[in-house]
Amino acid sequence: MYNLLKGKKGIIFGALNEDSIAWKVAERAHEEGASFVLTNAPIAMRMGAINELAEKTGSKIIPADATSMEDLEKLVTESMEILGGKIDFVLHSIGMSINVRKGKHYTDSNYDFTHKGFDVSALSFHRVMNVLYNKKAMNEWGSVVALTYMAAQRVFPDYNDMADNKAYLESIARSFGYFFGRDHKVRVNTISQSPTPTTAGSGVKGFEGFLSYADKMSPLGNATALDCADYTITLFSDLTRKVTLQNLFHDGGFSNMGVSDVIMENFMGEEE
Amino acid sequence: MYNLLKGKKGIIFGALNEDSIAWKVAERAHEEGASFVLTNAPIAMRMGAINELAEKTGSKIIPADATSMEDLEKLVTESMEILGGKIDFVLHSIGMSINVRKGKHYTDSNYDFTHKGFDVSALSFHRVMNVLYNKKAMNEWGSVVALTYMAAQRVFPDYNDMADNKAYLESIARSFGYFFGRDHKVRVNTISQSPTPTTAGSGVKGFEGFLSYADKMSPLGNATALDCADYTITLFSDLTRKVTLQNLFHDGGFSNMGVSDVIMENFMGEEE
Amino acid sequence: MYNLLKGKKGIIFGALNEDSIAWKVAERAHEEGASFVLTNAPIAMRMGAINELAEKTGSKIIPADATSMEDLEKLVTESMEILGGKIDFVLHSIGMSINVRKGKHYTDSNYDFTHKGFDVSALSFHRVMNVLYNKKAMNEWGSVVALTYMAAQRVFPDYNDMADNKAYLESIARSFGYFFGRDHKVRVNTISQSPTPTTAGSGVKGFEGFLSYADKMSPLGNATALDCADYTITLFSDLTRKVTLQNLFHDGGFSNMGVSDVIMENFMGEEE
Amino acid sequence: MYNLLKGKKGIIFGALNEDSIAWKVAERAHEEGASFVLTNAPIAMRMGAINELAEKTGSKIIPADATSMEDLEKLVTESMEILGGKIDFVLHSIGMSINVRKGKHYTDSNYDFTHKGFDVSALSFHRVMNVLYNKKAMNEWGSVVALTYMAAQRVFPDYNDMADNKAYLESIARSFGYFFGRDHKVRVNTISQSPTPTTAGSGVKGFEGFLSYADKMSPLGNATALDCADYTITLFSDLTRKVTLQNLFHDGGFSNMGVSDVIMENFMGEEE
Repeated sequence: MYNLLKGKKGIIFGALNEDSIAWKVAERAHEEGASFVLTNAPIAMRMGAINELAEKTGSKIIPADATSMEDLEKLVTESMEILGGKIDFVLHSIGMSINVRKGKHYTDSNYDFTHKGFDVSALSFHRVMNVLYNKKAMNEWGSVVALTYMAAQRVFPDYNDMADNKAYLESIARSFGYFFGRDHKVRVNTISQSPTPTTAGSGVKGFEGFLSYADKMSPLGNATALDCADYTITLFSDLTRKVTLQNLFHDGGFSNMGVSDVIMENFMGEEE
Repeated sequence: MYNLLKGKKGIIFGALNEDSIAWKVAERAHEEGASFVLTNAPIAMRMGAINELAEKTGSKIIPADATSMEDLEKLVTESMEILGGKIDFVLHSIGMSINVRKGKHYTDSNYDFTHKGFDVSALSFHRVMNVLYNKKAMNEWGSVVALTYMAAQRVFPDYNDMADNKAYLESIARSFGYFFGRDHKVRVNTISQSPTPTTAGSGVKGFEGFLSYADKMSPLGNATALDCADYTITLFSDLTRKVTLQNLFHDGGFSNMGVSDVIMENFMGEEE
Repeated sequence: MYNLLKGKKGIIFGALNEDSIAWKVAERAHEEGASFVLTNAPIAMRMGAINELAEKTGSKIIPADATSMEDLEKLVTESMEILGGKIDFVLHSIGMSINVRKGKHYTDSNYDFTHKGFDVSALSFHRVMNVLYNKKAMNEWGSVVALTYMAAQRVFPDYNDMADNKAYLESIARSFGYFFGRDHKVRVNTISQSPTPTTAGSGVKGFEGFLSYADKMSPLGNATALDCADYTITLFSDLTRKVTLQNLFHDGGFSNMGVSDVIMENFMGEEE
Repeated sequence: MYNLLKGKKGIIFGALNEDSIAWKVAERAHEEGASFVLTNAPIAMRMGAINELAEKTGSKIIPADATSMEDLEKLVTESMEILGGKIDFVLHSIGMSINVRKGKHYTDSNYDFTHKGFDVSALSFHRVMNVLYNKKAMNEWGSVVALTYMAAQRVFPDYNDMADNKAYLESIARSFGYFFGRDHKVRVNTISQSPTPTTAGSGVKGFEGFLSYADKMSPLGNATALDCADYTITLFSDLTRKVTLQNLFHDGGFSNMGVSDVIMENFMGEEE
């Protein structure tokens, strides 16, 4: 709509289906004039409708396991070939807790699951930047964004080890962002998004009730996946070049609420 | 350049001269298709070159003392008349410490000066929103931004009572932002900007050295006034509708640095 | 009980009645071997039972308006005479919003009330430290504590301008704490306490319901006034000498909760 | 000195030698009347002088690999037998980066090293609490403390993956602390300590210079290992029962400094 990303080249991780935030980012990036490569884990892509998105946005798909350095190196090399140059923006939207999937309570973790979820959800972000940095694959003033959630700062009891993984992910953004900024003028930030009814989010217990709670706590209501895509576009654009190492809350105000009037009313409801 | 603010109407406080961040915001908002009213304190305007800016951007000027409810009510009413409708965006870029100007050390404040500086630098933001809110002068999904500085969170010894005023200002953004969001779908945020060589900033003791320190601490270097204007435009645009109650660091990464390699080298320098 | 404050001398502001946190601090400080002066605003003391507390703890009372430099200078000078030496600890527990008392909504503040409340609730903390610092009235490794509330960071809609005042107060702790630490080895911190059913707290609308909400959100429940006194004692003791410029949450965990299971259950209650 | 821990029983991880913070905590806990078990990794204990500490404090030593559930279960069971009841306090002071030891730069991590360091430095804290929680081994109002460093929030370029591990550790404190508080009234906090010249700390490149930098930035100077032990004692005592889920900075004020006068002078030095 605005040509905010005209001529920019990117890599987008994590577009599973049309509920995915990454899917919306791809659609919006396309509208704003970007070209990009779509990628996802081979196993996830069999489930998804990613071909449809690729067609719609004129993109290539390169499957890659984000825990495999070999896959990531191939992804980055081929992406530069396909797009005809270095990369301007990267979206990391990857997260998965096997403890959650297998119904293991946080106080009774299976640590093999914990390690595996950590590798996929957090360390993958380090691997992606490692490859981009060492291949000098990013243009100056490029932008890397990862999606995260406020469970990294505060307790949401059902978020399990994803909370800790997101804390690690946000730390990687700072730690790697320093070197990426200093050496290549690339900025690195995380967006801490409202709970969003994606396939991943929906796996969390009691998710519907929690969505409603968050919506009522937030003065502007929950941010949707499309809202998040719009915001991500601004972080990929040239208008935010000096924003780096930040964790940016995109949540209708939730993060700075102690309590809202609506929540207090609901909470008091049953006592009337 | 992108028509990001096409058709939007605004009020911009604080454009003193071409070094001012507000000046750059006005220029950029004009380029992005906005129309707006410029305002400043009557006393400040006599010093400034604001007529030139008004001419360049096709804007009207309405002098207003931001500590006077009468002036602010007149400003808002007339702005809506001039612009032909409700307001979409407001920039608050106002700050002044009389203790600093008069050379009073922080540990030896003149409390009349403190009250006056507080009124101008912090409470003015409440007054502006009070008038906008009660006059229902903002369009839904409008955006209010105030400029602030990280001295609100951490000690910069020469920043004096401006540090405390900025902490109060940021609190107003949250407190008023809640009601403005809940009732009128208006978002309120502050931008915590790098030290910037404006007329106001330059008043702080040892400012040149401090600029250099901040620049060397920040992986992307200090954000300039123009960078800040670009960032402000994104917050006025429709792409950031669900960002509210936030204090957003725009500082090349300074805020999340413990120490940089360059600072450590400089610091160790004299010991070699 | 532990002689943690044996031989230490202090000044305690704000003991109104036996519900006051300052009252509990006085009782606990006495038990731990401290001697101190009690002080409060002349107007507040007429309402209070402070004579009883003075008798119980063997303390003198010196009335002082915390917005009057003259009163504060007299207080500090006389306290050193009475206690026989410099001061080791100071508690600031002062807060009052005239806007709240007069029923003015936050979006419709009376700014004379705002200034007055700011003077009493926030700037008084600066004045107290100003007098202590310039009179060199504190011993090395002395400790200054002010009580605050989390509304300084997050929105609690009925907290009105006390939220902003507490943000300013916490900023003073950092700003003044730097000079007090650097020059006199005195530490300055704030305790951000659970909502507490004191005379002051009870003035906030819907306070009972809010107490219950906070209690159910906090994994350890709300901290009581006595809990807060115990914690304050540790901050006055020699065991916390290197803690300074901090805002310390003392709230059963509330501050780092996103949502608790009990709150979600209550919240969902009416939908069953 | 104060009998603050009279009759309390604890487990102390990580006393390697007399420079260790855990060593000082053991000495101070002993002085305050506690009895406890000392533990460390079998490999670390061969290097250490822990027998001397055990003798001095009348403690038993139980070697345990903190990444082994079997070892930890044995440790907790035997500790309760030795101490004659449930546990009141636990100190986790464990951290190690193989990437640092092997000289791998952060942008060129060996991910096997990363996983191993993560397991030892971060996940061990979860394992310890898992065993304590599921064995119901803690008394009500018990206290668990882990040591951390501010690299979890801000960039210190040489801290490598320890920064990210500490971010994960601090998240575990919140996530597990919720359940431990809700179910067993146990509090869980982390202390974010000044850089300290321990065996572990000294492994970081340029550590001496960094110690000096931190000392000059902090209004009260760096906190020593003994200072940290004193502070830890307060968190184990009954005076801090409602403090939980917190990350507590114990650093002479460093964490809330933007810049100090001394640092600015040093920084400007070479330009004179």
